Amino acid sequence: MTLSIRGLPAVFKRFSSSSSSSTTTIVTKAIPSKSHLHAPILDSAFPSGYALAGLHCGVKKKPELLDLGIILSTSSRPTSAAACFTRNAFKAAPVVVSQDVLERTGGRARAIVVNSGCANAVTGKQGMEDAWAMVRTTDALLPSSSPSSNETLVMSTGVIGQNLPITKILEGIRSQGSSCTPTLGSNFQAWERAARAFMTTDTFPKLRARTFTINGKEFHLAGMDKGAGMIHPDMGPPTSSGQLHATLLGCILTDAAVSPRSLQSALTYAVDRSFNSISVDGDMSTNDTIIVLANGAAVAAVEPEIDEATDPEAYEVFKQELTAFAADLAQLVVRDGEGATKFVTVTVEGAPTYKDAHAVASRISTSALVKTALFGEDANWGRILAATGSIPLSQPINPSRVNVSFIPADGTAALPLLVNGEPEKVDEARASEIIGQEDLEIKVELGIGSESAKYWTCDFSYEYVRINGDYRT
Amino acid sequence: MTLSIRGLPAVFKRFSSSSSSSTTTIVTKAIPSKSHLHAPILDSAFPSGYALAGLHCGVKKKPELLDLGIILSTSSRPTSAAACFTRNAFKAAPVVVSQDVLERTGGRARAIVVNSGCANAVTGKQGMEDAWAMVRTTDALLPSSSPSSNETLVMSTGVIGQNLPITKILEGIRSQGSSCTPTLGSNFQAWERAARAFMTTDTFPKLRARTFTINGKEFHLAGMDKGAGMIHPDMGPPTSSGQLHATLLGCILTDAAVSPRSLQSALTYAVDRSFNSISVDGDMSTNDTIIVLANGAAVAAVEPEIDEATDPEAYEVFKQELTAFAADLAQLVVRDGEGATKFVTVTVEGAPTYKDAHAVASRISTSALVKTALFGEDANWGRILAATGSIPLSQPINPSRVNVSFIPADGTAALPLLVNGEPEKVDEARASEIIGQEDLEIKVELGIGSESAKYWTCDFSYEYVRINGDYRT
Repeated sequence: MTLSIRGLPAVFKRFSSSSSSSTTTIVTKAIPSKSHLHAPILDSAFPSGYALAGLHCGVKKKPELLDLGIILSTSSRPTSAAACFTRNAFKAAPVVVSQDVLERTGGRARAIVVNSGCANAVTGKQGMEDAWAMVRTTDALLPSSSPSSNETLVMSTGVIGQNLPITKILEGIRSQGSSCTPTLGSNFQAWERAARAFMTTDTFPKLRARTFTINGKEFHLAGMDKGAGMIHPDMGPPTSSGQLHATLLGCILTDAAVSPRSLQSALTYAVDRSFNSISVDGDMSTNDTIIVLANGAAVAAVEPEIDEATDPEAYEVFKQELTAFAADLAQLVVRDGEGATKFVTVTVEGAPTYKDAHAVASRISTSALVKTALFGEDANWGRILAATGSIPLSQPINPSRVNVSFIPADGTAALPLLVNGEPEKVDEARASEIIGQEDLEIKVELGIGSESAKYWTCDFSYEYVRINGDYRT
Repeated sequence: MTLSIRGLPAVFKRFSSSSSSSTTTIVTKAIPSKSHLHAPILDSAFPSGYALAGLHCGVKKKPELLDLGIILSTSSRPTSAAACFTRNAFKAAPVVVSQDVLERTGGRARAIVVNSGCANAVTGKQGMEDAWAMVRTTDALLPSSSPSSNETLVMSTGVIGQNLPITKILEGIRSQGSSCTPTLGSNFQAWERAARAFMTTDTFPKLRARTFTINGKEFHLAGMDKGAGMIHPDMGPPTSSGQLHATLLGCILTDAAVSPRSLQSALTYAVDRSFNSISVDGDMSTNDTIIVLANGAAVAAVEPEIDEATDPEAYEVFKQELTAFAADLAQLVVRDGEGATKFVTVTVEGAPTYKDAHAVASRISTSALVKTALFGEDANWGRILAATGSIPLSQPINPSRVNVSFIPADGTAALPLLVNGEPEKVDEARASEIIGQEDLEIKVELGIGSESAKYWTCDFSYEYVRINGDYRT
C-alpha cells in the first residue's frame, strides 16, 4: 500500500533525479558536518583518579588515526566495575573475556583497554587468546597488581572475521608502562585521545563530562562512546540473556564510590533508557559493550560506598545522574548515524507497560518507510500509524484512542496529525516548517495505560545506502 | 561496528558518487524493467465458473489506469470462501467488513470487489459505510442474491486517511450489471484487466495460472496480487490475532470444490509459507488481505467437497498445490519490490522449530545492512551472522555449529562463507560472480534442530530511498 496524507503539498525537494536507459543520477543534499558536536572540556570537569592514553599502534593503516585506548584507575580506593554486553548469540572474544573478568573479580576492575580497526569477532580460539593477552598486558600497567589479578576489561571494534595484529597491540600497551609515557595523562587532551581511539566510521570523537552533587558533595562523570552504523543495541548485565541488536562501545567513569552490585543495577537501568533506546539502522552487533568504573577518588577512604540497600536516597540520585548522562552519550551516536540528516525523538505514552511503550517506539524508530519519509521531509503519519499497529502489545490497541503529533524542536506549538484515531486537517505550511528542522519529536499516545518510553533515531538517506552498499569498494 | 570480510576484493562498483559542499551526486544503475514477468496465459488455463471485470471508475486521475476490479463466481454449486487478513491493530474498513462477511456466511462468498488508489484506511464511520456499500452493490450483480445476503468480499489499496470517492465506485460496480457490460468476461483479457485494477506502485500486473489433478481429475488455480512497498505481511485467519506486518492484496480462484473449513486451513498453511514469508521493507500495512474462492465448477453437483476429515489425501494434494501457487504469487511481489535489483531467497535450516527458522530468515531478510550489502554486491557474511544472532530462539545458538553459504541461482556449486563458525578463505572471483547475478540464495544452517524455513526478500537501493523519500513530491 502507498501511504500519503490529505491536503499536504509537495514538500521541499531534498533531491532530484534523472534517468537514462542504464543509469540514474541523483543529486542530493550533502550530509552536514557534525564536528561542532565536539568541543573542549575544562580539565576540572573530569573525574579525578583516572589516567588515560590514546595512541596509534598499527591496527589502522594511517598513522594519524588512533587505534588503541587505555584507561587506568589510579585511585587508592577499590574501584567498582559494571558492564552491559550485547545479547547477540555471536559474542565477540572481548565480550566473552570482559564478562569472565567481571565474574571472577565480583565487579572490581581498574583498567579498560580498547582497540579500533578490528573487532576480534568470529576469530575462534586465537581471538580468545588475543583478548586475554590484552587483559594481562594492561594489568601489568596497574600499581600493585599480581599477574593473575585480571583487573582489565577489554573492548574491540572494527572489521569482523580477522585476527588482531596482537603483537602491535601488546607493544602499544607496554609502551605506556615504560619510562617515556607521552600520552598517559589526565587532562582534556588525554581524555580526547582516548575517545579518538574508539572511532571507526564516527565523524567526531564522542566525549562528555557532567558534575553532580550528593548531600552537598560534588562528584564527576565523564564518558566516551563510539558508533555510527549497526546501531540498535540491546545490552544486558553479564548474566542476562535475551534479544539483542548494534556496535556500540562506551565507557563511563566516575569518582563517586559505589558498591559493585549497586553500580551494576544503576547501569542496567540507565542502559535500558539510553543505549538500548537508540537505533540507526536496526541492526545489532556482536561487540556492543558499555562499561562503568567508580573509583571513589572524590571521597575519603573512610566513606562507605553508595549502596541501594544502605543509602537508597544517594543511590537514586546517582542512578538518575548516570541515566541522564548515558542518554547524552547515546544520543551523540544517533546524531553521528551513518548518512543521518535528522535527529528524531520518538515518544510513546499511554502504554500498559514500559516494555510495550519501548517496543512501539523501537518499531517506529526502525521503520524504513518512516525513516525515508523523514529524509524526504514528508509528514507521513500513515506510516507511523502502520508501524505502531504492527507489533503485539500486552493489551490490544483501540484505534479510536490513538493520537499522533509532531513536537517541534524550537519549543513552538505541537502539530496534531491524528486525534482519537481521526486524521486532522493539517496546516500544510506548518507541517513543512516543523519537519524541515534537523531535530523533531514524534509523539504517539496509545491511550491504554500510563507507561511511557523515549527512543532516539535518525532518517534513512541515500548516503546510508552509499556508505553500506559501497563499504568495501 | 563496521563489518567486512577477509581477502575479498573491491566488488564491482554499481555506482559512483561525488560531493560538493552542498550536494552529493550519485550515479547508480537504473532499475531494470520487470515487464517481462507479465505474459499472456491461454484462456483454457483459467478455472471455469468465474467472470471478471477491470475498469477505470475515477479513483485514480489518469483514465487509462484501472482502479476497480470485480470477480464473480458463476458456478451453480455453492462457492466456498476463505481469507487471511493483516493482524495490524489499525485494520482498514474493507478488512473489518470482509472479516464480518465471512463470519456471517460461514465461509460462503461468491464475489470479490477491489479498488486501488484509495485504501479506505483510518476513515472512521464513513469508511465502514462505504465498504458495506461496495459489498451490497456488488451482491446485486450476483444471480439469485437477496439484498441481505452479503456474499461479496471487499479490498482496497492506495492512499491512507482519505475517504473513497464512493459514488464513482458504486457507479462503476453498477455498470457491470447493465445491459452493456464491456469488460465482464472470462478470457485472458478479462483476467488481466482485473489484475491491473489491483495495481498501485506495481510496475506490472501480477497474474498466474496453474493446473493440477486430484485422482486423475483436472482442476485449475488462477490468481492475482499486488504490492511493491510496505511489504512484510503477517496475516492470519479471520479470528486470529498476533503480530502483523505490509500492503499486499491477492486473490486465488479455483474450480475445485473444497469445504469452507478446509479451504481456510489450507489457505492459512499456504499463506504462512508464502505471503507471510516475504519482505520488501519490513513494514506491515493496515490492508493486507489474501482471499481464496473455490466454486466447484470443475466437478458435478453430486461430487462432495474436498474436506480434511473425509478425504485427507485429496486435501493434502490441494493444500500443497495451493501453497506452491501462493509462493509463486508472493515471489512476484518481491521481484517487483520498490527499487529492487536483486531477488534473494533466504533459507534457514537446522532450527529447533519452524517458528525459530522463520524468525531468523525474517531478521536476515529485513536487515538494512544485509540488504544494502546485497545492493552493493558485497559478500558480507558478517552482517548475515550478526542478524542471525540478534533474535532469541527457543534454544540458544552454538556459534561453532553455524554454517553460512551462498547458493548460486545458475545451479553451480555453493560457496561456503562460514563453516562451523569459522570464516572460510573465500574465492574472491567466485564470490563476485555469484553475488553479481540477479538471483541469489543465502543459506544458514543453525545446527540445533531439523526444522527449516524459506523467506524471499530484495535488496535496498538508492531507488528505494527515492521512491519513499520522494513519495508525495
